[in-house]
Amino acid sequence: MSKVGIIMGSKSDIEIAEKVMDTLDEFGVEWEVTVSSAHRTPEKTADWVKNAPHRGVKVIVAIAGAAAHLAGVVASETHIPVLAVPVASTSLQGMDALLSMVQMPGGVPVATMAIGKAGAKNAAIFSVQIISAGDEILEKKLLDYKKEMAEKVYKDDEEIQRRLKNRG
Amino acid sequence: MSKVGIIMGSKSDIEIAEKVMDTLDEFGVEWEVTVSSAHRTPEKTADWVKNAPHRGVKVIVAIAGAAAHLAGVVASETHIPVLAVPVASTSLQGMDALLSMVQMPGGVPVATMAIGKAGAKNAAIFSVQIISAGDEILEKKLLDYKKEMAEKVYKDDEEIQRRLKNRG
Amino acid sequence: MSKVGIIMGSKSDIEIAEKVMDTLDEFGVEWEVTVSSAHRTPEKTADWVKNAPHRGVKVIVAIAGAAAHLAGVVASETHIPVLAVPVASTSLQGMDALLSMVQMPGGVPVATMAIGKAGAKNAAIFSVQIISAGDEILEKKLLDYKKEMAEKVYKDDEEIQRRLKNRG
Amino acid sequence: MSKVGIIMGSKSDIEIAEKVMDTLDEFGVEWEVTVSSAHRTPEKTADWVKNAPHRGVKVIVAIAGAAAHLAGVVASETHIPVLAVPVASTSLQGMDALLSMVQMPGGVPVATMAIGKAGAKNAAIFSVQIISAGDEILEKKLLDYKKEMAEKVYKDDEEIQRRLKNRG
Amino acid sequence: MSKVGIIMGSKSDIEIAEKVMDTLDEFGVEWEVTVSSAHRTPEKTADWVKNAPHRGVKVIVAIAGAAAHLAGVVASETHIPVLAVPVASTSLQGMDALLSMVQMPGGVPVATMAIGKAGAKNAAIFSVQIISAGDEILEKKLLDYKKEMAEKVYKDDEEIQRRLKNRG
Amino acid sequence: MSKVGIIMGSKSDIEIAEKVMDTLDEFGVEWEVTVSSAHRTPEKTADWVKNAPHRGVKVIVAIAGAAAHLAGVVASETHIPVLAVPVASTSLQGMDALLSMVQMPGGVPVATMAIGKAGAKNAAIFSVQIISAGDEILEKKLLDYKKEMAEKVYKDDEEIQRRLKNRG
Amino acid sequence: MSKVGIIMGSKSDIEIAEKVMDTLDEFGVEWEVTVSSAHRTPEKTADWVKNAPHRGVKVIVAIAGAAAHLAGVVASETHIPVLAVPVASTSLQGMDALLSMVQMPGGVPVATMAIGKAGAKNAAIFSVQIISAGDEILEKKLLDYKKEMAEKVYKDDEEIQRRLKNRG
Amino acid sequence: MSKVGIIMGSKSDIEIAEKVMDTLDEFGVEWEVTVSSAHRTPEKTADWVKNAPHRGVKVIVAIAGAAAHLAGVVASETHIPVLAVPVASTSLQGMDALLSMVQMPGGVPVATMAIGKAGAKNAAIFSVQIISAGDEILEKKLLDYKKEMAEKVYKDDEEIQRRLKNRG
Repeated sequence: MSKVGIIMGSKSDIEIAEKVMDTLDEFGVEWEVTVSSAHRTPEKTADWVKNAPHRGVKVIVAIAGAAAHLAGVVASETHIPVLAVPVASTSLQGMDALLSMVQMPGGVPVATMAIGKAGAKNAAIFSVQIISAGDEILEKKLLDYKKEMAEKVYKDDEEIQRRLKNRG
Repeated sequence: MSKVGIIMGSKSDIEIAEKVMDTLDEFGVEWEVTVSSAHRTPEKTADWVKNAPHRGVKVIVAIAGAAAHLAGVVASETHIPVLAVPVASTSLQGMDALLSMVQMPGGVPVATMAIGKAGAKNAAIFSVQIISAGDEILEKKLLDYKKEMAEKVYKDDEEIQRRLKNRG
Repeated sequence: MSKVGIIMGSKSDIEIAEKVMDTLDEFGVEWEVTVSSAHRTPEKTADWVKNAPHRGVKVIVAIAGAAAHLAGVVASETHIPVLAVPVASTSLQGMDALLSMVQMPGGVPVATMAIGKAGAKNAAIFSVQIISAGDEILEKKLLDYKKEMAEKVYKDDEEIQRRLKNRG
Repeated sequence: MSKVGIIMGSKSDIEIAEKVMDTLDEFGVEWEVTVSSAHRTPEKTADWVKNAPHRGVKVIVAIAGAAAHLAGVVASETHIPVLAVPVASTSLQGMDALLSMVQMPGGVPVATMAIGKAGAKNAAIFSVQIISAGDEILEKKLLDYKKEMAEKVYKDDEEIQRRLKNRG
Repeated sequence: MSKVGIIMGSKSDIEIAEKVMDTLDEFGVEWEVTVSSAHRTPEKTADWVKNAPHRGVKVIVAIAGAAAHLAGVVASETHIPVLAVPVASTSLQGMDALLSMVQMPGGVPVATMAIGKAGAKNAAIFSVQIISAGDEILEKKLLDYKKEMAEKVYKDDEEIQRRLKNRG
Repeated sequence: MSKVGIIMGSKSDIEIAEKVMDTLDEFGVEWEVTVSSAHRTPEKTADWVKNAPHRGVKVIVAIAGAAAHLAGVVASETHIPVLAVPVASTSLQGMDALLSMVQMPGGVPVATMAIGKAGAKNAAIFSVQIISAGDEILEKKLLDYKKEMAEKVYKDDEEIQRRLKNRG
Repeated sequence: MSKVGIIMGSKSDIEIAEKVMDTLDEFGVEWEVTVSSAHRTPEKTADWVKNAPHRGVKVIVAIAGAAAHLAGVVASETHIPVLAVPVASTSLQGMDALLSMVQMPGGVPVATMAIGKAGAKNAAIFSVQIISAGDEILEKKLLDYKKEMAEKVYKDDEEIQRRLKNRG
Repeated sequence: MSKVGIIMGSKSDIEIAEKVMDTLDEFGVEWEVTVSSAHRTPEKTADWVKNAPHRGVKVIVAIAGAAAHLAGVVASETHIPVLAVPVASTSLQGMDALLSMVQMPGGVPVATMAIGKAGAKNAAIFSVQIISAGDEILEKKLLDYKKEMAEKVYKDDEEIQRRLKNRG
């Protein structure tokens, strides 16, 4: 089965990585994860990326903060899609990681998601969107997910209406 | 055959859109394009998106500037992957479009590329990366593209060496 | 009677929404509120907006954070005035929501207020300013409100003078 | 008839002001205009604002750049709606004017539009949206305006399709 | 004797204002203070400013946050020096107040200090620098103040040396 | 007579410096000027500053771009008022010079004006405001300057009214 | 033996300075430290810098926040390498210190590290990289340091794998 | 003899690279240069870096724009000092390259210079400062360079004085 490869630049990004895993679990999509740094373990990173396709990895999610080179370095070593999740790990609130990831020069694409947990969740869903091509079961799960999200909004709305009725 | 759907928020984004088309042409990947605004023609946009899969569209590239809602609005109507290319069309130099695209809330992913032409080129390549899954010919083209890019750098290096030799 | 329609992109914006309601209550202006997302429930949003005038809604206040498309999406579906309140719900401190709201392209206006509670309060007052046209009672309330605000400043001044007298 | 009052902080803002006038002319809505500075002619500004309602002004559009206090100063003197158009007249590209206008404290609302001409156009349309309340002819014009904008997009789309057909 | 007039836009700025007062007290320079808003009490503000010279005020320190128009509004009504202290009272961390104060258009100067307490302290010292012209006692105090600051650094250095000696 | 000392960090700042001189000339206030860098000629800078009072200098205007340390370095060597004019001389559009000048730590004040020519003009006027204390002729000139500025706005207004009358 | 000179603008920067010392201690490289301000003790600073080479200092690390002139002022007085560590000590989160340090004009280099502790650690390592030239023992330590960092990543990876195995 | 290795991410950075070379030529310091991309030719980059010490390279200057990963990638492969020069090659004016370079995580230092040509010049001088350790001739050149810079300022000052004398 198709797998999503998750790579985080530092052990401290685990909370963000777990948001990716949890969301993939909701879709029943397999994942593997590694801690590997663009700067501290460039070879480990390159090896992991180059062999990823042989392990069934179809999409890679790179998670990093600060001068977040990980996604770009990963993308330089593969032709499979690389998603990037910037982490707000410095005083610049993630703006540094965001620009380091999103402003990739022409030729080596990295698909950047929002800073932090929202981006992690979306990286997972986007991975499923990629993998689901031609897989009716996954496609159905995506459509169901959209429906459930919508239903959640309806329920939230009802809850708010109830709560406000009682504030009078 | 799989197709990439390109949607631009305004006719004035055509130069950026053509960068997407040109790059897809290099890969021999089919595309269709439309001008449709999230704000001025919401129905046209929704119709185009909803029917896109029936026309063979597997990935959508949304191009917009300013308060660039187009990619998010498109993503709200589909479960296929949506890529976003922010355009620097205001005095804020594309920072407005970038944040409007990349900071999508959890649940509705949009994959954001760099501002302007670099992002347009990368949106095309990333589309090919998505579509190429299981397509050996396209995968080979991606690998060749990477090789040619690398060769171009080697040639650029040689040219620079020659030029500098003569500066003495 | 004229009504203000309040729409918030997420249940978590309720605190900001209540600032709008509370301020409208001070003026005795009716409101209705809904939770509806631009991205998760586009149809609910469009329906709510399109029918708003039939329910007596004369102004809409849209509240959202992150890539805050809600106000723009609402404005695309109506010709009644749409006010926007950006919420600081991400690590970018509301700058993302602000730019996503205020930088609307020509043709589809959205009137943006300050980030957070100050903006929520002002959205309510601005709604009253719109609705009050030709309504002498509401106009008087607005003038009284301005007077009371001014009196509050005078009282604050007196309090500070007293407090400082005692610091000697 | 209802009128829109346009106030610009400096003669050099005339190009932006004319965008407001031109758009109001499209709707057949009357306007008056003045050059008056918050800082250089505070009394002229205050007089103009205070008397505006007596001259039939229902909405005020304030245009200014740099430390753009004009809209706030105008709003401090009136209870009718004040719209703000930030101008990119310094090296900070309008970010200074935008923040000076949009971040108004609670109690004195200013409704901010986009920086520059897009904002000027939208200030005019938003003024019409306010004035049109209960005026069926104006409401119809707003709906027609929306339709024409949409038709323009359809035409732009056709033009692009034609142009692209010939690029083969 | 010469006096410094302190004006704060809101009671909540008192902590910043007290930093100004405390520092002026260190120099034995008289001050008066008022709470008055550019937007909520424009007349109170104008009156206070216009009469300030008659009360012996030689310099005005204006303290405000958000769209901080206070210093500019004060400067528009007087020819005596106006200093501005931006307050970080919104999610934008004082960048809004800073730009609203420092980017004054040519003709109406406002002298801006750092955001927050450092700026408040410096506004006080700068006021003394202005007032001290021709006043040998005050000049001496300023020179002594500089000396004491320097001595404080020497003492801090010694303390650090001691502390580090013991860390071995 | 009292003099304003102008110091610019680089010969290339001459256009900004001339704006200061021209404005001082309008008020008949004497000035002296020097090119001296905080980094390239620290001793020249320190000498010039320390001796400035002996040459009759009552206020110093420091003009610099990029990492604009000049004003702070000047302020560290004197107790007379130091004004700062940030120059937009790098790709960061003057934001670097602005923050380098305005964010001075407590104890060593620098009074920052707007970026570029507006700030240069205001530095000159602010210098006159400082020097004018007790000088009735200068005070009158400041009041006249304010009047002329206001009259200029009235004339601009009239010109705009005429121009617009003819556009019909 | 070669020494690293550490200078911090304020006693409050001690935590950042200790990160430099701790890291140098790991390499067995000597250091000396001083508290000295660019603005409050310019002479102490200049003396310390000018004499540094005589005390065996080969590299200087300057630590400062806000309008962080310290590194530039130090660099103006010496020809030995000056490293800069910006501190996030104001509401602007270190962006002010970063720009004040990194945007040095041509001719007087300052080598800027990341904001805060990451930058402090790197300033220490970079100092060792400079000093190690021709010193085989230090070079070996640098290579070992790199190896240990890499090994740490491998261990972190193993720990994460174990932890995740147990989450099932 | 010691050499400086210059690596630029793209042929289009040549103008910035030549500023480095020209400045090194002034000091008679040898250099070698290569075009090699972090993303398009990761292996070429890694090879060049790893072998650099064997070719006599003692310091590396990495030049890149956009998501400028080059310096970080180079630093990950070597223990010799790596300097970074950010290039303003996108609509974000070099802020993207600056943050991508300067915000390196702890453990892998990169010493960042100013954006563009000022930074290029300073990277060269800083390289000489590193290389000059123990080389009296180079040290003398650095001191002479400082002197000449200072003399240039004195001459600029004289020129300005002459020019201003004639403006009367």
